[in-house]
Amino acid sequence: MGQQERADVADWMQIIDIIAKKRDGGEISPAEFEFLIGRYVAGEIPDYQMAAFLMATYIRGMSKGEMANLTRAMALSGDILNLSPLVGCKVDKHSTGGVGDKVTLIVAPLVAAAGVPVAKMSGRGLGHSGGTIDKLEAIPGFFAELTEGQLKKNVAEVGLAIVGQTANLAPADKMIYALRDVTATVASTPLIASSIMCKKIATGADAIVLDVKCGSGAFMPDLPEAQALAQALVDIGEEVGIRTVAVISNMDQPLGKAVGNALEVKEAIMVLQNKGPADVTKLSLFLGGQMLFLAGHVDSPQGGEDVLKEILATGAAWRKFRDFVAAQGGDVAVLDTPTLLPQAPFKFSLRAHVGGYIAGLRADIIGQVSMDLGAGRQKKDDVIDPAVGIVLARKIGDPVEVGQLLAEIHANDEGSGKRAMRQVLQAFTLIPRPVSPPPLIYKQVHN
Amino acid sequence: MGQQERADVADWMQIIDIIAKKRDGGEISPAEFEFLIGRYVAGEIPDYQMAAFLMATYIRGMSKGEMANLTRAMALSGDILNLSPLVGCKVDKHSTGGVGDKVTLIVAPLVAAAGVPVAKMSGRGLGHSGGTIDKLEAIPGFFAELTEGQLKKNVAEVGLAIVGQTANLAPADKMIYALRDVTATVASTPLIASSIMCKKIATGADAIVLDVKCGSGAFMPDLPEAQALAQALVDIGEEVGIRTVAVISNMDQPLGKAVGNALEVKEAIMVLQNKGPADVTKLSLFLGGQMLFLAGHVDSPQGGEDVLKEILATGAAWRKFRDFVAAQGGDVAVLDTPTLLPQAPFKFSLRAHVGGYIAGLRADIIGQVSMDLGAGRQKKDDVIDPAVGIVLARKIGDPVEVGQLLAEIHANDEGSGKRAMRQVLQAFTLIPRPVSPPPLIYKQVHN
Repeated sequence: MGQQERADVADWMQIIDIIAKKRDGGEISPAEFEFLIGRYVAGEIPDYQMAAFLMATYIRGMSKGEMANLTRAMALSGDILNLSPLVGCKVDKHSTGGVGDKVTLIVAPLVAAAGVPVAKMSGRGLGHSGGTIDKLEAIPGFFAELTEGQLKKNVAEVGLAIVGQTANLAPADKMIYALRDVTATVASTPLIASSIMCKKIATGADAIVLDVKCGSGAFMPDLPEAQALAQALVDIGEEVGIRTVAVISNMDQPLGKAVGNALEVKEAIMVLQNKGPADVTKLSLFLGGQMLFLAGHVDSPQGGEDVLKEILATGAAWRKFRDFVAAQGGDVAVLDTPTLLPQAPFKFSLRAHVGGYIAGLRADIIGQVSMDLGAGRQKKDDVIDPAVGIVLARKIGDPVEVGQLLAEIHANDEGSGKRAMRQVLQAFTLIPRPVSPPPLIYKQVHN
Repeated sequence: MGQQERADVADWMQIIDIIAKKRDGGEISPAEFEFLIGRYVAGEIPDYQMAAFLMATYIRGMSKGEMANLTRAMALSGDILNLSPLVGCKVDKHSTGGVGDKVTLIVAPLVAAAGVPVAKMSGRGLGHSGGTIDKLEAIPGFFAELTEGQLKKNVAEVGLAIVGQTANLAPADKMIYALRDVTATVASTPLIASSIMCKKIATGADAIVLDVKCGSGAFMPDLPEAQALAQALVDIGEEVGIRTVAVISNMDQPLGKAVGNALEVKEAIMVLQNKGPADVTKLSLFLGGQMLFLAGHVDSPQGGEDVLKEILATGAAWRKFRDFVAAQGGDVAVLDTPTLLPQAPFKFSLRAHVGGYIAGLRADIIGQVSMDLGAGRQKKDDVIDPAVGIVLARKIGDPVEVGQLLAEIHANDEGSGKRAMRQVLQAFTLIPRPVSPPPLIYKQVHN
């Protein structure tokens, strides 16, 4: 056996030993994670070995230290964004994904207007509607593919830039995510948490506020699971030295009223002009307050919230949003006159057949309809239609009389619009007694 | 989406659902096993999905019914040998593999001489020495690749044929076995048991006696594990309608004295001439007695053993072996004069440096030395050297004085022979007090 062959056999044994260790509930070492992730990204560990490891991890779980070491190894698998020339603490914000979640569009200019620079990298993602970048691209001219130099320049001048993820950001995460999707290993807390946090490390965040969605329209339908994920995220943050707060918020019904890319931009503008839906405004201020606090800008999250309320009232956040869009090539005239945003050719009004109170408004159904209308991606290469979507007229707790509006469907053709009407109707549960709206924010976890 | 695409998506979902079910400890249905195995063999389910399923199975286990359904699906993945035109009950015998295990060479002619036809398919296998076919091929001219017609003709005329496995026997098993080897999912009782039993179903056995080896030189080092495997094998047999007995026998030290292909043939001849080592003779009669009983040839296993003792004493088994080898092209003159069997050019005598009693004789070390000498295969394509091996002069319980023979090494060159000497010495433990030999047969499990 030559020296090369010996090394190969040693590697071969090492990967099998790593899989066997996790299979038996053992603790994977930092060096073993480096080996596992490094060789996997290099194509030297095949998918079937990683699949066995992922299944063992799904069933056996991971310790706090293991999660952090896996996260670090995934972050180091690709480019690391170095934003250290930027002044101050870089605070990031991340949502685990919900229907109608346009909070980043609001929080980023809010926080930037308070003087904390925001350099955000966002994914495009799969799902019911596009990611933050997809939403922003509903604004004609908006350009998200900035170079690192442009990103830094914009942050220095405007205080805010939002860009797409570079192709080589945490490639291990992309590969593992794709494999989890086809091996029934998606819903694993350590794997979800490390996937989220590795990208935050790679983009150089010093602190991060995580919005963990919980409910029918979220990845985590139940509170205990959401809580476990929130704790795992905070644990990883602590281990890798990123100040982290995880907020668990309700996703039983969509957030706000608009679902769909241009429709959500329009709603974000309303919020930034301090006349948007109460829930979106409240959650944005809450998360923004946490960000200001983590950045060391205020003494308490509540203090941060107070600052941001003031900024919202003065119009400073709205102006910051305009400047930010302009700096990335977007047509500001469209922001000033949102009817210039892409419009769907067909609009259908869904009205109540019976009167009562809205007791349920299934976010998962609304999300599915939004995707079916063309607002989201089912596959990576699907093209998003910025104009389509749903605008809810009523939410849980609201009274409704026969014939009153429940929702408006924005569709690209008559068939899909009518189909959407029937499905959205099924998302609503009406009962004769008054109903209290659900809590918006369940709890927060921090280290 | 076209109809074809819909079907693909449905399949895609089905495999992920099957993996998820086993991941959560659920029960896989017969139809799901058919889908899983059928599509995997067709190349429509990739290795990474099967790897995830195997890991979930390793950790979660399988019920009796699941094991049987997996076994059936694997058996049906390739050719099914139809031996029904052969008269009577077809009894098979299988060993989980041990060092120096040449029992099939003895039991097959024994049972055939008692009037129970034996049509045996044997693997070549990896490991310390070759499989049964490799051992028989140490006899010049012996030919194991019979057609189905020749096999039936030989069984009808001689009462015994031993052939290699057809290429398309249980291909699912070959594929899954290879995948388990590289995904740390080898030591799983349901996977081991289904792998053994599927080939027995495919070769048309009506009854089977399984020799489950237990000890340092076996796949199952501990009695509880061996017992679990024995029970799983018997459970599968019961579910699929094959009368099954599993005998757990000792493999802490090699069986008999010879390890190596031609050396084991020589020892088998000694046993068939009723002058072989006591342990091999005893185990052969015990397993053979069980086979006669399962075939309905006698009223009890003990009755079967008594019949076979008589047959051994009369020389009928030895004559049956000669006829069988001749019918498959082997040179019978070599059987009559075993010194004509392949001989290694170098022989080394290992002698005791201290006196005492043999308290340990590690079968795993002897097996490894045998493989290093060239008697076994490390990789599928390795060529076996029929001549090399080890002949033990003393076994556990035997007394030894300084300078007396412990073992003889048969090597192809001086270097490997001397290396083997040092290693075989380490396999022996000598202590000053007398030692009882370990039990040969631990227990039996039947349905």
